[in-house]
Parts: sequence; C-alpha cells; structure tokens
Amino acid sequence: MNRSVIRYMLAKVILLTGVCMLFPSIVSLFYKESIGGIYLACSIICLVVGQLLSFKPKNTSFYAREGFLVVSLSWIVISIIGAFPFYLGKELPTFTDSLFEIISGFTTTGASVALNVEDFSHASLFWRTFSHWFGGMGVLVFLLAILPSTSGQTMYFMKAESPGPSVGKLVPKMQSTAKYLYSIYAGLTALEIVFLLFGGMGVFDAICTAFGTAGTGGFGNYSSSIGGFNTYIQIIVTIFMMLFGVNFNAYFLIVMKRFKDAVFMEEVRWYFGIYASAVLAITLNLTLVGGNFLTNLQQAAFQGASIMTTTGFSTLDFNLWPHFSKVIMIMLMFIGACAGSTGGGIKVSRILIYLKTVYKELQHLISPRNIKIVMVENKPVDHDVVRSVNIFLIAYLAIFAGSVAIVSLDNFDASTTFSSVAATLNNIGPGLNLVGPMGNFSMFSHLSKYVLMFDMLAGRLEIFPMLLLFMPKAWTSR
Amino acid sequence: MNRSVIRYMLAKVILLTGVCMLFPSIVSLFYKESIGGIYLACSIICLVVGQLLSFKPKNTSFYAREGFLVVSLSWIVISIIGAFPFYLGKELPTFTDSLFEIISGFTTTGASVALNVEDFSHASLFWRTFSHWFGGMGVLVFLLAILPSTSGQTMYFMKAESPGPSVGKLVPKMQSTAKYLYSIYAGLTALEIVFLLFGGMGVFDAICTAFGTAGTGGFGNYSSSIGGFNTYIQIIVTIFMMLFGVNFNAYFLIVMKRFKDAVFMEEVRWYFGIYASAVLAITLNLTLVGGNFLTNLQQAAFQGASIMTTTGFSTLDFNLWPHFSKVIMIMLMFIGACAGSTGGGIKVSRILIYLKTVYKELQHLISPRNIKIVMVENKPVDHDVVRSVNIFLIAYLAIFAGSVAIVSLDNFDASTTFSSVAATLNNIGPGLNLVGPMGNFSMFSHLSKYVLMFDMLAGRLEIFPMLLLFMPKAWTSR
Repeated sequence: MNRSVIRYMLAKVILLTGVCMLFPSIVSLFYKESIGGIYLACSIICLVVGQLLSFKPKNTSFYAREGFLVVSLSWIVISIIGAFPFYLGKELPTFTDSLFEIISGFTTTGASVALNVEDFSHASLFWRTFSHWFGGMGVLVFLLAILPSTSGQTMYFMKAESPGPSVGKLVPKMQSTAKYLYSIYAGLTALEIVFLLFGGMGVFDAICTAFGTAGTGGFGNYSSSIGGFNTYIQIIVTIFMMLFGVNFNAYFLIVMKRFKDAVFMEEVRWYFGIYASAVLAITLNLTLVGGNFLTNLQQAAFQGASIMTTTGFSTLDFNLWPHFSKVIMIMLMFIGACAGSTGGGIKVSRILIYLKTVYKELQHLISPRNIKIVMVENKPVDHDVVRSVNIFLIAYLAIFAGSVAIVSLDNFDASTTFSSVAATLNNIGPGLNLVGPMGNFSMFSHLSKYVLMFDMLAGRLEIFPMLLLFMPKAWTSR
Repeated sequence: MNRSVIRYMLAKVILLTGVCMLFPSIVSLFYKESIGGIYLACSIICLVVGQLLSFKPKNTSFYAREGFLVVSLSWIVISIIGAFPFYLGKELPTFTDSLFEIISGFTTTGASVALNVEDFSHASLFWRTFSHWFGGMGVLVFLLAILPSTSGQTMYFMKAESPGPSVGKLVPKMQSTAKYLYSIYAGLTALEIVFLLFGGMGVFDAICTAFGTAGTGGFGNYSSSIGGFNTYIQIIVTIFMMLFGVNFNAYFLIVMKRFKDAVFMEEVRWYFGIYASAVLAITLNLTLVGGNFLTNLQQAAFQGASIMTTTGFSTLDFNLWPHFSKVIMIMLMFIGACAGSTGGGIKVSRILIYLKTVYKELQHLISPRNIKIVMVENKPVDHDVVRSVNIFLIAYLAIFAGSVAIVSLDNFDASTTFSSVAATLNNIGPGLNLVGPMGNFSMFSHLSKYVLMFDMLAGRLEIFPMLLLFMPKAWTSR
C-alpha cells in the first residue's frame, strides 16, 4: 500500500470539506445565526490542516487497493468533520447522532435522528441538504473534475464511487467525464430551483429541496417533508426525482445530440417501465380501498418515485396503505434507481442482468448445447461483470442479514427492524412503522446506529470499499 | 421432447402411488375406520391406470429437458392423486385444501390447513406423515432404486430431485447409489422408532413421528406437535432431526468405514457449527430475558434443529421469543440443512460457496493479479457449479418477492405474509404470527394457497424444474 498517496488524497478531501463549510457560514450571515461561527471555525481548521498535509507524494503509484481505501477513508473523514458543527452547535444531543445525521446526508440516505427538524438553524438545514447534493454525484468524482490528474489510474475512484455494475467512460479522459457529469448535474439542479420558485416556494426552501432531490437524499426543512406544499410543487418534485434517478449517460447522449440512443437505453426504459407498473398497481390497490383515482395516482406517483429513486421525500404516511401497496414499495426500495445516477438500491441494470441470467439458464437447461450470452444495451455483458454483479448480491444479502440481527437486539417490532436496515442500506431514508415517513431513527441504541451508519456507507459505496477496510491484507505494504 | 418416455415414467409413478396408498388402508383396518375403503379404491384405480399406461416406449432417448419435466410432472401427479382421499373422506373442506395438505406432505413442508389435526382419521394421519417420508428422499430416486434402468441418463432425475448444488455419485452406478441412500434412510428411521418406543411413545405415534423427522417434514399427530411428550422424547427428536439434516454422503462414508472422511466433511462441520452458534445465541438471549439456562438450552436446541433442518416440529411458540432470537430463527430458515439431506432451505453448502466467493472477490480486489479459486471439501468448485449456485439465489429471491406480493393481497400483517412464503419456499412449515407454530394456513385465499403450493414444490425441487414448466420451449418437440 502506498500510504503517502492516500495521505495526499485525504488532505485534498479535507481541503475540499473546508471550502464546502464556508457555504453554511455564509447562509448564517443572512439569518444572523451564531452557529455560523462554528462552521467558519471548522472550515478554517480544515483549510489549514488540509494545506499542511497536501504536499506531493514522491511515489504516485496507485492501484485498485489504494483506490478503494481512498474512497472509503475519504467518506469516513468528511463524515467525521461534517458532524462537528451539529455537535458543537448543540443541534443534536450526542456526537453519535451528529455523525449519523451527516453520514445520512452525504450518503443521500435522508434518515434523520432529529426529533423535530424545524429546530435546526438555517445554516445546518443548508449543510444537511448540501451534503446530499455533494454526496450524490461523489466527492472524489468532484476532486477528479477539478484537480490536475495525479496519475492515470483515477479510473479506480470512479469505479469505487459511482453507483452501478460498470462505469462507462463517457469520453476517453476520466477528468472530462467527471466535468461533464457535474455540469449536467448542476444544470438540472438549477432547473429544478427555477421550477420550484415558479410554484411559489421560498428561495431557501427551493435550494434545499433541489439539493435533496438532485442527490436523491430526502432531508427536508419540514417535519411534513413535501406534504405541506401545493400539488404543483409535489408534481415538480416527482418529475425531478425521476430525472435524477436516470442513468446520467442518457443525459450525456442528449448533450451529444444522440437523442435516439438516449431514448433507447435499455436500463432507462426498464426503469420507467417498472416505475409505471408499480404506480399503477398501487393506485388501483388504493382506489379499491377508497379515495379518488386521480388523487391516489398523484400520491402513488410521488411516493413511488421517492422510494424507487431512494430519495425519501414524502407527502403522506404510506405506513397506512394496504399491505399489497407496502410490499410493492419494499420491492421498489430494493430495486432502486439506474446505475450511474445519484440513486441507491441494487440498481435497475443489476436487476436486468439478474433476470436475464435466470432466463438464459432456463434456456440452457432445455438445450444444454446452445450457448447463450446475456445482452444488455445490445452489448454482451462481460463475464467479469456478471460475476461481480452476482457477488454484489451475496455480499449485500450477508450485510443485510447481519445488520438485521444486530439491530434486532434493540427489540423493536419486525417491520421497524427490517425496514430500518432496508432504508439505510439502500440509502432511502424512511422505512416502515417507527422509522416510517412520520418517524425517525433517534430511538435506536448506539450500537444499532453505528451498524446503520456502516450500512449507509456500504450502500452508497456499493459495499466492497467498506468491506476492504476489514481485510488486514488491504493495509499491508506491498 | 420425447412424450412417450415421459408417459412411461409417469405411469410408473402412478403405479407406485397406488402401492403406497395400500398402507393407509391397512392402517384403517386396525382402527376400523371407514375411510380405508377410499384409500383402497384410490389405490386400485392407480394400479389399473398405471398398468394400462406403462407400456414400454419405442424411443427411450432421454435428455436433461425430459428429466426435469418428468420430475416436476411426477410431483404434480402424485400430489393430485394423493389429495383425493382427504377430499373424498371429507377430512378437509375443499379440494384446494386437500391438495395444499398433501403437497405440504410430499415436499416435507409440514404447513397444514387443518383447523384441528386431532380430527384426522388414523389412516389420514399415517398418509400425511408417510408422504413426508416418501417425499423426503425422493419419489424418482425410489423408482431409480427399484426399476431396471430405462436408459443410462437417469442421472438427470437425481440432479433434479436431490437437494443441493451438485449431486455426488456415491458409486459408479446411479441405481446402486439410490439403493444405498434408501437403505441408510430406512435404517435411520427404524432406529428412531426404536428410541421413541423406548421413551414410552405409542407404536402409531412413534412411526408417524419418525416419518416426519426422517423426511424433515413436521406434520404431527397433535396440535401441540411434540410439546406434549416428555423431555427424553424431545431430545431424541432433536438429535434425529439434526441427523436427517446431514449430507447423506457422510453416512455413506461411514458405511464404507471411511470415518475420518465423514467427520471432516466441510459442509457437515459448518452445519453443526452454525447450529451450535445459533442455539447458544438464542439460549443466552432467552436466559437474559428470564428462565432457567438448561431449560432454555433444551428448548433452543429443539426449535433451532427443527427450523434449520426445515422439519417444523415445535415444543413451544417461538413467536413469543424476543426479536433477536426470532431473527436468528429466520436466518436458520433460509440457511437450511445440508445438501444431499432430506432438509430444505438454501443449503449449507450453497451458503459456504456464497461466502467463499465474496472472500475471494475481496482478495481479488486487493491483488487483481492473484487468481484465487473457491475450494469446498478440499476440491476446487467447478465454474458451472458457482454459476448455477448464483443463479439459484437470484431465481429464489425472484420467486420469494413475487410470492410475497401476491400473498400480500390477502392483507394479513407483514410477518404473517413474509413468513408464510419463507416457511413454504424453504419447506419448513410454521412461520410467524398467524402461521406460527400454534397457527395454520387455512385463512389464506385460494390464490395465495396455490402460490404457496407452487413455492413448496419449487423449494423441494430447487426451483428450476418448476420454472421450466412455464417455458413453452420446454414442451416443443425437437
């Protein structure tokens, strides 16, 4: 392991966190909040420490192992730094809670331990949703976009930090890819802010809501989430949640004027297909129980988009829905958004590969001599991708089962325990019962909170970088 | 597809079912029950129809496809025939219920739709547990043992009907393997009967209990399952449940006097290791809540063995245990018994392969140039086995999710819905809440019952044979 290159990258991450913390301190100026001093102090410390540590390493050799370690350590470092203002500013009672809240922010989960979100200062509300925006596209992807490349091997960052089974290089240079991604991301966010302002939302709420949507995070400024806003705003948020759950390659194709290729992306079509079927099924189920079809449709569309893209906003308590609708919601939780989007979950492209491998196997059993190949997006799926996608599922289930076992020691009901893990590992936010849209995560023990924090990070970084931290071999020198 | 060879095999299965139905009619003679006439009539019809249809096919060519179809169709045929006495004898109110009960029997699930098991006639109680015994080792494996081989390709039956990722041929000839398996199976069953009689159990109860244990089925003759019997009997049943969950290859090695090889079988050691850890964890959890350590240990050992081997007997209502213990039980439900045993679930050997592949992948990520191979039982695991084990997991999860969605339409609570599918797909029997050890499956809608019947068959036949029934291509002529 090349320790000095890891030290160098972490120093850059600390510097970057310092710059980011200037924003909430600026916000505090507008609202004359004393907490701004804490954000400013944290920012200055980060800038100084980061500057001191970021001298160039002699040996810049950099391999997969260093890539994974840098990614997981970076996320842990920014989380620990980012938690301090919540703790020092007495926004949350313990450091554990502060860490939970900011990990939930950066990983775009949106699960909160705050009993009453309206008690947060504006600076901290901003910091919460800004962490969604920043964590959504990726901290190291951002560094990649602004730093002169330290070595040619930066592909490893993208691989470890970008959601999905395989990273498509949009353009030959990774740095340009990162720049393109962040430009599209910022553009779409700005567009949502404009639409929200047009619907009568205040500037601060519009910015925070857009950040929460863009990162598919789900922290809101109100206990009622988006429920207190008008139908127009709810529909705008629905549309943008779905847009941020789309594979960003599709937007890149649109920017390149390859509209036909964008529209025919297999994953994107399945994504909308699954969403439409789920919304229709829920709407019918709700309407059979009672209520107006159109109202139910709008509510199902919002809640469905929020859960499938793993955002976690809500306009009602879907805990009260009939069981069939809840099961559909749980299935959407696990399916998740597209690869290469800011959303979490298993990802539509993985689900596609899974179903296609089963179909292929059945054909193989019927005629063993016919060798079939799994095709996605009209391209054969590489054997290595199939393998790693399968192993992802196993590791995912193992972490899921282990987490449920530990959290169950708190002895909450089965739905709460099960869905608290599902909601954090898939980076959604709300689950069912006590952790439902109207609940929060404050009542868990410290042990459970640390397990759920691990799950949030494992979900965001797609498991392997977090598991490698526990392999002694990953830390040894070559 | 070679239709005539399928017709020939199904005719043999019908003949065999006819012979089996003579046993309950003999039982009815002892107890002077009129239902014996129904069993006798069904038996005679089967013998006549089976004889008429079992003329030799001209073309005996037989491939994987025919193998799978014969297996799934045989299980459906014996279930439909086996349900008639329950229906005609008015043991159960509808044919759907009768079919559910006997599928639950043959698949060694043990989930009952009977409101009160004490209302069954002795003949039907015998038929229920005999179906466990017969279904446990396999209907076609039995045919294989007694029939002169129709062709050299009978390996396909064993492959499709024996639980586990790969079938080991114990001896070069499949027919001898089948004979060995059934001899060991019958021997162990007889041994359990002797031990139970020694503990003061009546002859009829001892035979039925041993059948239920041997097949890891779980139908009992009493609503209190094994709870009404003394501690000695409960311990004997615990031990034999664990013994029938062991890979039968181990017994074969013992018969061959290769004791060392038997003791060092990796899967068997993991099987007992997981069991011991789970029992210890549950015992500690229970003792912290209250009660005597030794009593808790004995209860945890019984319930743990019953669930891990997917038998489904009970001596208490584990619904009332704290959540941590219940989560451990649910994990045991999914892990299941050893491959090559009569138990269900995912199987210990598959779990082993899963965990080893994840570990291998982590090592691969650290040093990409080191190619590692997954080893089980000191042998490299064939690539094809890894692939089919992975695909099994995907298909398993897909069926699980789909079943939960359909069963949730009945709008029972989440634990009932979830565990009803878990208990049938893993061939266990009891789940949680309404379908817990003290409940039954009678309240489900017809639709849900058919879904759960499919799950029982899919679980017993390890999914693929049942899925192939839905592939139109499987039915076409070559």
